[in-house]
Amino acid sequence: MWDLLFGAAYYPEYMPYDRMKKDMEMMKRAGMNTLRIAESTWSSLEPEDGRFDFSYIDGVLEAAKAGGMSVIIGTPTYALPPWLVKKEPEIIVEQKGGRALYGARQLMDIVHPTYRFHAERVIRQLAKHTAKHGTVIGFQIDNETKHYGNYGKYAQELFVNYLRERFVTTEALNQAFCLNFWSNAVHGWDDFPNIKGCCNAGLGSCYAAFLRKLAAEFLKWQAEIVAEYKRDDQFITHNFDFEWKKFGADIAQDGYSYGVQPDLNHAEASTAVSMAGTDIYHPTQDELTGAEISFGGDEIRCLKQKNYLVLETQAQGFKNWTPYPGQLKLHAYSHLASGANGLLYWNWHSIHNGYEAYWMGLLGHDLEENETYREACLIGEEWRRIGKRLSRLKKENKVAVVVDNVSLDALKWYPADKDLSYNDIVRWMYDSLYELNIECDVVDVHSLVPERYRMIVTPALYSVSEETVEALEKFVREGGVLVSSFRSFVADRNLRIYPDRKPHGLNECFGMMYRQFTEPGRTLVEGRQARYFAELLQAQGAETLAPYEHRYWGGYSAVTKNSYGDGNAYYAGTYLEKEQLKKYLLMAAKDAGIKIPAQRWPVIIKSGTSDGKKLHYILHYSEEDREIDCPYEKATDLISGKSYRSGEKILLKDWDVKILEENQENRQAVERVW
Amino acid sequence: MWDLLFGAAYYPEYMPYDRMKKDMEMMKRAGMNTLRIAESTWSSLEPEDGRFDFSYIDGVLEAAKAGGMSVIIGTPTYALPPWLVKKEPEIIVEQKGGRALYGARQLMDIVHPTYRFHAERVIRQLAKHTAKHGTVIGFQIDNETKHYGNYGKYAQELFVNYLRERFVTTEALNQAFCLNFWSNAVHGWDDFPNIKGCCNAGLGSCYAAFLRKLAAEFLKWQAEIVAEYKRDDQFITHNFDFEWKKFGADIAQDGYSYGVQPDLNHAEASTAVSMAGTDIYHPTQDELTGAEISFGGDEIRCLKQKNYLVLETQAQGFKNWTPYPGQLKLHAYSHLASGANGLLYWNWHSIHNGYEAYWMGLLGHDLEENETYREACLIGEEWRRIGKRLSRLKKENKVAVVVDNVSLDALKWYPADKDLSYNDIVRWMYDSLYELNIECDVVDVHSLVPERYRMIVTPALYSVSEETVEALEKFVREGGVLVSSFRSFVADRNLRIYPDRKPHGLNECFGMMYRQFTEPGRTLVEGRQARYFAELLQAQGAETLAPYEHRYWGGYSAVTKNSYGDGNAYYAGTYLEKEQLKKYLLMAAKDAGIKIPAQRWPVIIKSGTSDGKKLHYILHYSEEDREIDCPYEKATDLISGKSYRSGEKILLKDWDVKILEENQENRQAVERVW
Amino acid sequence: MWDLLFGAAYYPEYMPYDRMKKDMEMMKRAGMNTLRIAESTWSSLEPEDGRFDFSYIDGVLEAAKAGGMSVIIGTPTYALPPWLVKKEPEIIVEQKGGRALYGARQLMDIVHPTYRFHAERVIRQLAKHTAKHGTVIGFQIDNETKHYGNYGKYAQELFVNYLRERFVTTEALNQAFCLNFWSNAVHGWDDFPNIKGCCNAGLGSCYAAFLRKLAAEFLKWQAEIVAEYKRDDQFITHNFDFEWKKFGADIAQDGYSYGVQPDLNHAEASTAVSMAGTDIYHPTQDELTGAEISFGGDEIRCLKQKNYLVLETQAQGFKNWTPYPGQLKLHAYSHLASGANGLLYWNWHSIHNGYEAYWMGLLGHDLEENETYREACLIGEEWRRIGKRLSRLKKENKVAVVVDNVSLDALKWYPADKDLSYNDIVRWMYDSLYELNIECDVVDVHSLVPERYRMIVTPALYSVSEETVEALEKFVREGGVLVSSFRSFVADRNLRIYPDRKPHGLNECFGMMYRQFTEPGRTLVEGRQARYFAELLQAQGAETLAPYEHRYWGGYSAVTKNSYGDGNAYYAGTYLEKEQLKKYLLMAAKDAGIKIPAQRWPVIIKSGTSDGKKLHYILHYSEEDREIDCPYEKATDLISGKSYRSGEKILLKDWDVKILEENQENRQAVERVW
Repeated sequence: MWDLLFGAAYYPEYMPYDRMKKDMEMMKRAGMNTLRIAESTWSSLEPEDGRFDFSYIDGVLEAAKAGGMSVIIGTPTYALPPWLVKKEPEIIVEQKGGRALYGARQLMDIVHPTYRFHAERVIRQLAKHTAKHGTVIGFQIDNETKHYGNYGKYAQELFVNYLRERFVTTEALNQAFCLNFWSNAVHGWDDFPNIKGCCNAGLGSCYAAFLRKLAAEFLKWQAEIVAEYKRDDQFITHNFDFEWKKFGADIAQDGYSYGVQPDLNHAEASTAVSMAGTDIYHPTQDELTGAEISFGGDEIRCLKQKNYLVLETQAQGFKNWTPYPGQLKLHAYSHLASGANGLLYWNWHSIHNGYEAYWMGLLGHDLEENETYREACLIGEEWRRIGKRLSRLKKENKVAVVVDNVSLDALKWYPADKDLSYNDIVRWMYDSLYELNIECDVVDVHSLVPERYRMIVTPALYSVSEETVEALEKFVREGGVLVSSFRSFVADRNLRIYPDRKPHGLNECFGMMYRQFTEPGRTLVEGRQARYFAELLQAQGAETLAPYEHRYWGGYSAVTKNSYGDGNAYYAGTYLEKEQLKKYLLMAAKDAGIKIPAQRWPVIIKSGTSDGKKLHYILHYSEEDREIDCPYEKATDLISGKSYRSGEKILLKDWDVKILEENQENRQAVERVW
Repeated sequence: MWDLLFGAAYYPEYMPYDRMKKDMEMMKRAGMNTLRIAESTWSSLEPEDGRFDFSYIDGVLEAAKAGGMSVIIGTPTYALPPWLVKKEPEIIVEQKGGRALYGARQLMDIVHPTYRFHAERVIRQLAKHTAKHGTVIGFQIDNETKHYGNYGKYAQELFVNYLRERFVTTEALNQAFCLNFWSNAVHGWDDFPNIKGCCNAGLGSCYAAFLRKLAAEFLKWQAEIVAEYKRDDQFITHNFDFEWKKFGADIAQDGYSYGVQPDLNHAEASTAVSMAGTDIYHPTQDELTGAEISFGGDEIRCLKQKNYLVLETQAQGFKNWTPYPGQLKLHAYSHLASGANGLLYWNWHSIHNGYEAYWMGLLGHDLEENETYREACLIGEEWRRIGKRLSRLKKENKVAVVVDNVSLDALKWYPADKDLSYNDIVRWMYDSLYELNIECDVVDVHSLVPERYRMIVTPALYSVSEETVEALEKFVREGGVLVSSFRSFVADRNLRIYPDRKPHGLNECFGMMYRQFTEPGRTLVEGRQARYFAELLQAQGAETLAPYEHRYWGGYSAVTKNSYGDGNAYYAGTYLEKEQLKKYLLMAAKDAGIKIPAQRWPVIIKSGTSDGKKLHYILHYSEEDREIDCPYEKATDLISGKSYRSGEKILLKDWDVKILEENQENRQAVERVW
Repeated sequence: MWDLLFGAAYYPEYMPYDRMKKDMEMMKRAGMNTLRIAESTWSSLEPEDGRFDFSYIDGVLEAAKAGGMSVIIGTPTYALPPWLVKKEPEIIVEQKGGRALYGARQLMDIVHPTYRFHAERVIRQLAKHTAKHGTVIGFQIDNETKHYGNYGKYAQELFVNYLRERFVTTEALNQAFCLNFWSNAVHGWDDFPNIKGCCNAGLGSCYAAFLRKLAAEFLKWQAEIVAEYKRDDQFITHNFDFEWKKFGADIAQDGYSYGVQPDLNHAEASTAVSMAGTDIYHPTQDELTGAEISFGGDEIRCLKQKNYLVLETQAQGFKNWTPYPGQLKLHAYSHLASGANGLLYWNWHSIHNGYEAYWMGLLGHDLEENETYREACLIGEEWRRIGKRLSRLKKENKVAVVVDNVSLDALKWYPADKDLSYNDIVRWMYDSLYELNIECDVVDVHSLVPERYRMIVTPALYSVSEETVEALEKFVREGGVLVSSFRSFVADRNLRIYPDRKPHGLNECFGMMYRQFTEPGRTLVEGRQARYFAELLQAQGAETLAPYEHRYWGGYSAVTKNSYGDGNAYYAGTYLEKEQLKKYLLMAAKDAGIKIPAQRWPVIIKSGTSDGKKLHYILHYSEEDREIDCPYEKATDLISGKSYRSGEKILLKDWDVKILEENQENRQAVERVW
């Protein structure tokens, strides 16, 4: 296996003419070593029902072998071939608005037995055909899998079975979701209505969670099939992706990886794979901050608590992603700094027709060298040189940001504000930590192991089980620092709002409670506008870090801090400016004994150990040159080979990267900077 | 019966645990005396087809009896139980976009025989079961009834029958609506097409009016069933609601009662009830003006020309309705000042799951005392004390604002401007009167009795029958004052534009006519921007109160006044600033001999007589304290017991209320203030 | 035949009462000579299946005869009668969202055999009935014909047949559109999927082009039927209309003729008619620029390279079109200046009910004289006097703007920016020429004959065949001037992006190439913001007229000019301010030897010859009076009879028109002004 995988998705079957040899030659020149193929090519691999043609796969594998490249094989199941739809029209997913129209990818009913039959056959054929090939280092199962808003009869039948098993009686069901409301109570499982029109937040969220479960099971099912064929040294992965933030064009021409994926629970689904993978697309040019790369990396790394692979990221992408000189390199090292063990561009060459013709690859439509390609060559050259020292970076962050799909759904039903989503709140807290250079894990609430951390941050953890409440109380009592935002600890996992004081179960821990909340209106906090939602906190032992400033709400607290047991609990009752939030996060980190670099964004410092050596990535997200003091006793920039002593000036050019490797004796240096 | 009803909608069946006793105890403590129950609980009352279970009703009735409370029983017909939909899927209403999906309330086909069969059975069972119970003081039939956009076959068949009866021949039909246009003419009733795609404004409006008629008939049908069971001392009511102004969130989290209800004609439907009821929700906090409470009250009071009941209004409601200290009291007295005989909050306790969990009740989700509940206790205390003197307020307003559903529909088809609705124009004129403290009735055009009034205001009375035109002409001729806005007197009741000069039939009365109108563009009136629509008035005898200021339209009048017979007729050809409109309304009121208090909004004065005594509500919609001079010879504030002499300073604190009862000798005092 | 046709669409069948005689009298008084009737009256002409009633037609023809008027007969096929829809519901077009709902016009399946059967019968009956009548001067086939988004089975079957014929094998099909992408490849024609969900830009555009072809064939089919009956002296025409720019109201209350018609290819369809006709609606009042009249005229005139008829244009229209004094006249002469041989208002009288009641005619709803009618009388009077000298204006423009439906579709799939459409780019370039008084032809790319021109302008000619590329290269090489915008010369006619350097095939001609493009962001050109899209041009021989101003893109060119062969090629790589573009268009026109009047908009000068005499329309689109110097040796204003010598002041009042006829000896005068 390579130290760092470097390559691209490769689609010779989309090419206007055969240039496989030329492509391999150009890839090699760019220092690439890995291709990903086949994940959306069912109609090429099985042009007719039961007739398989792997000749184009064979062609790539042979070319890869000749060029000394590795290959990741994707199962082709996320895009249906026309013959299958013609024969079995019912395998197209039935969504809320009716059966989807064939054309785009990702519109099948993933629990339909007929779809499963055909998918299984092509997976088996493909795995059998390729697993033995020496160039194949692993398999990607399906592609950016989600549940596709499945309201088909199979999914609904499975859901009723699931409810019946979980609640046994319809009375228990009615009680859990308050189905008496608007006469929705069911008295007999046969009366359970079509879920399409469901207007009950709890039941609706329960269905969404169930659909995520079906999607996760679908991945496990695929993994088990592939496992029957693959060699032991081959990995199984999947490209987990994120909520996509759209800008408003009809066609997928802009948008980016923004936050928690609403339609698949990563933690649940990741048990299917042996190595976590991800697709991360992000703003660049003047909008490049590194935050999306960091957020995505921190989330994906925690799925398996080890290194992951960036299966897709942008080369040229959309018109607003054409990278400035230096940015492609900065992108690449940003991924490594979060623990990626390599990256593959989407894609090698721009496509000449079809939906994604302007989601551009490393090569433009002219298929010749260009500025972006030339910068990739630089990356390849450096990775060839220092890749060994960068791979298998270990990170041990002491801060966890807790995320939760159920809370995400809950805030769709019950938005804190029409202009503020769950992921907005997650990113508000995550980005504040990021900009402060407080490195963190991003952990699903079901995977949280509090004792790993010194500080836990909960953005809008609206839905929370009693177990989680107890675990967090214990965490603080035993010395941890908890930082929670408004809309945390409100409802149970069925979205039934706890019928007691809020924050539920943690009043004592936070030393405060609230009974009412309000639109902030003209309310200020520290002279600045409170926004979106304001809980009217009543301190009961807690210190009021900031009160509301308002004629009528002035008696209530906006931000509180409470010493509880051996720990501390912070609570922000409203949406503050990020600069205000950062102040409290710094206080909390100090309480937690977290050491933080002196630098702030746009200088980002990310640290870890590789092969026993301490590495510090210094990533510079700015077009303005600046100097920083070397924060380590003695360190060497792996890229330039230049060494720095503590306090020595390090010049950061526009969009610059340094990777400082500390000398052995300086291992603890990072602890001293504050 | 209580002097003033005070209470809440109560849903023990939504509670996470049994606390009926605690609830009754807290209600009593708040001075409450009335509960409304059952209006959306069909699935609880009839859990299976034909099996009835009134145990929860019985529980409430017994608890109410024990606590000395009264109960209003709502028929549960506006939310279908799942078993019924499963058995009879066709009773779900077919709307323009297809059959609605089950889940939310208010989606049944109210003319479907099967729906009627089941609705009738449950109404009979419930009425029979409860009518004899001593605590039951009345029935609410259905809930916020509308036609739900019914395009089902039953409604359409009834419509064709209705047209056939009304027009006899299709030739008459074609002529009335100009169906020749775009080849829509029908030659034979069997050719009448599905109305869903109708693009004819007249026919489309006619169908909308027909659907309103079906909804009104549905209410009458319910009332007749209930009447078979109810005692003579029990009332029948219905909670008429208003056009809901939305702010844009997907879920019903914000919006408020704005104007004329488009989907039910209140005047037509109110014959079904013995007491008018209403649901009024309104902006509060910094946005509390009292205008919605006043508009709603003035409209609902006129339905029966007597006191009405506020069956629903907000306690805590949405986050933007959390009341400031004093506001809940101000809300309550504002309702009484318009003639309400009491109010019930929606609802007692906030609900812990389901669609409306954040439409919060008097109690929050923790079900404990809170600031808002404590303010309700104050109201209860005061009403216990002075309720007798406040109940059965009689009002005799001399100004009428005429509203009309057909004109509302017409301006949807033919908007004066895409940003100006019919209700915007109604509120523009109504709010101007309101802010001037010119009290008025809000009267449906079909219910208008001109001789009751000295001044009649017609906002955009676009569609008008010849009879109405004649009645208004006579009204002015005999000494009345008519104030009309642009887009009045244009078309007949089929929306056929009258083929003669505008304003149709009233040229002479207004002393002007117009043939053309225009987008105002840069046109000014009195130096201020004319907006939305400008009719190019040609004075022919009328006085031009304000001309247009524009290079080309300068020769035309914007506002005219005409002496006609013994009266006067004002006409505003364009949308003026409210301050400009108020100037002309004041002139008109002066002409009409209407006496108006010297105060203006935010001090609102509403007057009436109760038990022969003259009462004046002084309502202060502002957070800034101010002093006013007592306008009455001698009067006593019923709340504080403090007396004032004419000219004496009355201090109004933020969101304050005074209720001045005049001494007998001062009965005519109000007449003198100007 | 009349020198100039002047009249209106006339719908006595929509009238509230019979006033044919009065109408004829008023028309005559206005100098009108032509009526258009019948184009949407199927339900009147054939009230029942197979029963025809032409009595209302006969009535109009007799009245017209008595009044000495001419009549144009429209076939009534664009609006279905109710009986036909009742009998044959499947002839309603099936669109992407399902079968349309009956009511509005233009919703039939124009390839459905049953529709064709009924349409043919009524056309034959009507043509037979009217063709012999002396007043009938021509026929309009159908009305504003388009394809209506037809996704019905007939259209789709025809499409597959068409593809099969064109590509023979599915392999060729797959290759042309890169159907391998997302597994869309078809292996066997029977597998071709329903096109509704198509997500392939090339195939989707191909279907759109096919639908346009069906609509064009439908017109040819109608024309052939009418031709069997019409007299030789009768014309066949059609009212071609334009992309409609909407402002956002639900109902068609505002919008205007903006650009290239997306749903019918005018060049393709115009072979069906013997005389081109058009519908042009445009902003007026303060927004009257004349640009829409000019653009529409320049496009329609080129269809047959001769005079055309304005079959519809606005009289009073919407509220924002109520003309200022003088504007109706200016509208009328603007049409003539572009080569129209007359115009008909839509419509004679405003309609009193139905969808278009507020798309007002020359008479308002009161059907009496009004200001606009009185201005039409002036036009009539002048045309009676000087019509002979204005008719049959010949224009020989030396500049062509090339437009293309396929490129329009392409930019829907692949927008340069979500706020910039193809027609925005067309209008950006066209309007710049217009405002410079550079007269041009607007030519479909398939009709372009380069040798007719000295300068060719291509706005976003995204899709281009090799033949066109070669023709343009030859055009420049042989001395022509080519001016192209960004997004020109990118893809072939299947939207397959050419896999080589851009601009495809013209690198050498333009002396530059580009490989990358970008969102402009903060990029400037000449100190002003570049907008929407920026191609990073690399000059290779070309002169850089303007570079990008940006830290990273500064090395690239924004505007280039290249001498190539005997000609010149300009290229604008981004969207400049119109003032910047004009500077380069002027340079290009100078290179091309085009002589341009010294005046600029708001003074527009349009020239041509009529009966051997040189005519110059001077059109003044401003409310501010101004003086210009007479640019001709000696010329006479045909309207006023006043003569001017070179340099003599001509006073232009607000919205003024002069028509200067040059004296014989001055024929070449225009050539000297620059």
